[in-house]
Amino acid sequence: MTTQPPPHPDHIFDRELITESLDRLANSYHPRTQPVPESPALMLPESLPEAGIGDGAALDTLAPVVLDASAQLHHPGYFAHMDPPTPAITWAASLWQVATNQNLLHPDAAPAARSLTERVVNWLAPSFGMSGGHFVPGSTIANLTALWAARQLKQVTRIAASDKSHLSIRKSAEILGLEYIALPTNSRHEVDISTLTQLDRTALVLTAGTVATGTIDPLIWPDETAWVHVDAAWTGPLRLTDRFASCLAGIEAADSVGFSAHKWLYQPKGSALVLFRNAKTAHDALSYGGGYLATPNIGLLGSTPAAAVPLAAMLLSWGRTGLVERIESDMGKADQLADLIKSDPRFLLWGPNQTGVVVWRPLNAEPSVVRSRLQNGWVSLTEVDGQTWFRSVAANPSADPSYLFDQVSAAL
Amino acid sequence: MTTQPPPHPDHIFDRELITESLDRLANSYHPRTQPVPESPALMLPESLPEAGIGDGAALDTLAPVVLDASAQLHHPGYFAHMDPPTPAITWAASLWQVATNQNLLHPDAAPAARSLTERVVNWLAPSFGMSGGHFVPGSTIANLTALWAARQLKQVTRIAASDKSHLSIRKSAEILGLEYIALPTNSRHEVDISTLTQLDRTALVLTAGTVATGTIDPLIWPDETAWVHVDAAWTGPLRLTDRFASCLAGIEAADSVGFSAHKWLYQPKGSALVLFRNAKTAHDALSYGGGYLATPNIGLLGSTPAAAVPLAAMLLSWGRTGLVERIESDMGKADQLADLIKSDPRFLLWGPNQTGVVVWRPLNAEPSVVRSRLQNGWVSLTEVDGQTWFRSVAANPSADPSYLFDQVSAAL
Repeated sequence: MTTQPPPHPDHIFDRELITESLDRLANSYHPRTQPVPESPALMLPESLPEAGIGDGAALDTLAPVVLDASAQLHHPGYFAHMDPPTPAITWAASLWQVATNQNLLHPDAAPAARSLTERVVNWLAPSFGMSGGHFVPGSTIANLTALWAARQLKQVTRIAASDKSHLSIRKSAEILGLEYIALPTNSRHEVDISTLTQLDRTALVLTAGTVATGTIDPLIWPDETAWVHVDAAWTGPLRLTDRFASCLAGIEAADSVGFSAHKWLYQPKGSALVLFRNAKTAHDALSYGGGYLATPNIGLLGSTPAAAVPLAAMLLSWGRTGLVERIESDMGKADQLADLIKSDPRFLLWGPNQTGVVVWRPLNAEPSVVRSRLQNGWVSLTEVDGQTWFRSVAANPSADPSYLFDQVSAAL
Repeated sequence: MTTQPPPHPDHIFDRELITESLDRLANSYHPRTQPVPESPALMLPESLPEAGIGDGAALDTLAPVVLDASAQLHHPGYFAHMDPPTPAITWAASLWQVATNQNLLHPDAAPAARSLTERVVNWLAPSFGMSGGHFVPGSTIANLTALWAARQLKQVTRIAASDKSHLSIRKSAEILGLEYIALPTNSRHEVDISTLTQLDRTALVLTAGTVATGTIDPLIWPDETAWVHVDAAWTGPLRLTDRFASCLAGIEAADSVGFSAHKWLYQPKGSALVLFRNAKTAHDALSYGGGYLATPNIGLLGSTPAAAVPLAAMLLSWGRTGLVERIESDMGKADQLADLIKSDPRFLLWGPNQTGVVVWRPLNAEPSVVRSRLQNGWVSLTEVDGQTWFRSVAANPSADPSYLFDQVSAAL
């Protein structure tokens, strides 16, 4: 019998190349002046190059684009979007994920990664009162999946959500061919469901953390509502904390919950969860068989990466208490920033910090103009009630509220 | 003014940890006896641990699951699913992607990654006659996105595809609320569209590479067909080769094309593209604005990782000619395996190798029983015309046809 042949040269373990990429990453990782640099002219051929330049030269060519011209999410002055910097433990575990490249679609192609994924789902689901669910690449897909289940299981014909809900709810309604009803909100941006009719035909989406202001809708609804989904894309992880779990009280009675792990669980992009109170029924409704599949394909995606690997590594490393410390520290930073804003008459604070999203503006300057003058800091811009505001999100554990506040003050 | 504060301890560059994960990966990378091992009992707590065990211990705990119990896609005896092992250049570039964690949703959060992504799309689209498109996490989402565009732009009410088409076409029809029509196929599994009516209301999906046998539908259709989408999930990259591009002749006249980069472009899972002949019109139809977005959100996902980074690195390193060498070498391996099967009276070959998918069976033994006896090799099982067959896919550049064939013969 033929003896075991050697691997292909592309698939011999290449420590030197990974070490080179690590060296370049180390060099670029020190915080620069500008957390968000200008996008460079791409020094890349306009069409697919005929001849290859080799691994080392490919890294040389891409480093100015991928490393030097990236937004530095870990920059102390980056207090901007809902995108956290990823901790090193997720880099270490993602290297394993990319190298083993398991496909959750099929037991053969992911004998252990499937069990690990289920375990991580089971670690998280009970905090939300849910019995299970699955990983999805983002909260838009979580929302669409949950509303697809609502249509299959409860024959809903309409989706109702606050007029401040995420655009993915409108998008889901359109894709699923359901009517979309925008419910009014009060001055604090909380939904008012009192006018909602035909509850037995309606999937009600409650938003736990609007994009603009981080507002949480009251998590209460009439019993006859056909399906209740909570879009907790941003705030979901608060449920794991001691101090802030009660912000989401009521979520345990929902039919489904979605949240992003790549937001407040500090994961690399492409990691979110959709959870169901009755996961078995929901998964059965979203299952497709195929002659080449040993087990049914559940949910929207087919081939799926093992996003649970870096999340499992981080949760094991930090434990729940370690995660809580970091989220509560983020919340503390948002409080500090809010206090600085309140104490300075040059600025207006939209409302108190509720979920780590601080909305503010200079009283006598255009936010976009001030932002364009920022030297060592960054805030995102948002539209609230027709006006442009700064939005500072506490997703970066390295962000420094005083430093950012000084930067913005200097740019007035 | 406050001087720049230091980063959070989680976000100091931790070379030691990455090196440790690399060491463990190196130790596990040598091909084992069994390419697909038993899934181990998970030595992990059943509920989310309260106390953290630290980064190093987290890697210690997960290594037996993630590394030792993974399917070795690079094993010389692994001639199984459409999941390739990833080359080292994708590990190096993915490390950058995970560490910088750019979000393609927003220019602020990905100043350079958005341009790079557009460049990579523009490298690939012309080979398919398409003008542009975007990355998606897999071909199921590519198919759904294309058919969503068909419904928005051409008001199709039905989706027609061969009875051998991928389950994601049925799934897309159900999600989009469209009628699904399964078209008959001939003995070679090619679609017969002669009976199709109401073409002006139909989105026709042609399959370029069925899952079971790799068959390509004839890429021809009547002019009055409202929308034609080619599901080239597996075979798409053949279009970049010299020898096999003509297998997909006709694709350039389609309205949309989808294919997976995590299949025959050797990328980590979560990487696929949907391309459109008229990308501007299609993207306009799939665009949603939001008060916090500087540019519209296009397509199904919201936050999106920069999957173009590892793909750009590999394409630069190898060039088109290097990629072609590897795909043509894979096709050569499929031919070798088919020749071995044909020359041995104990086995039956379903049909000639067309697209790297070899379907075969022992004449006097149950395929599932033979597979269960395999010691150092692996094939996938598939159902073809009601019977179980082996399916061997040439996605692993380290696979050795003679070695696998000897393994299977020994297991008879």
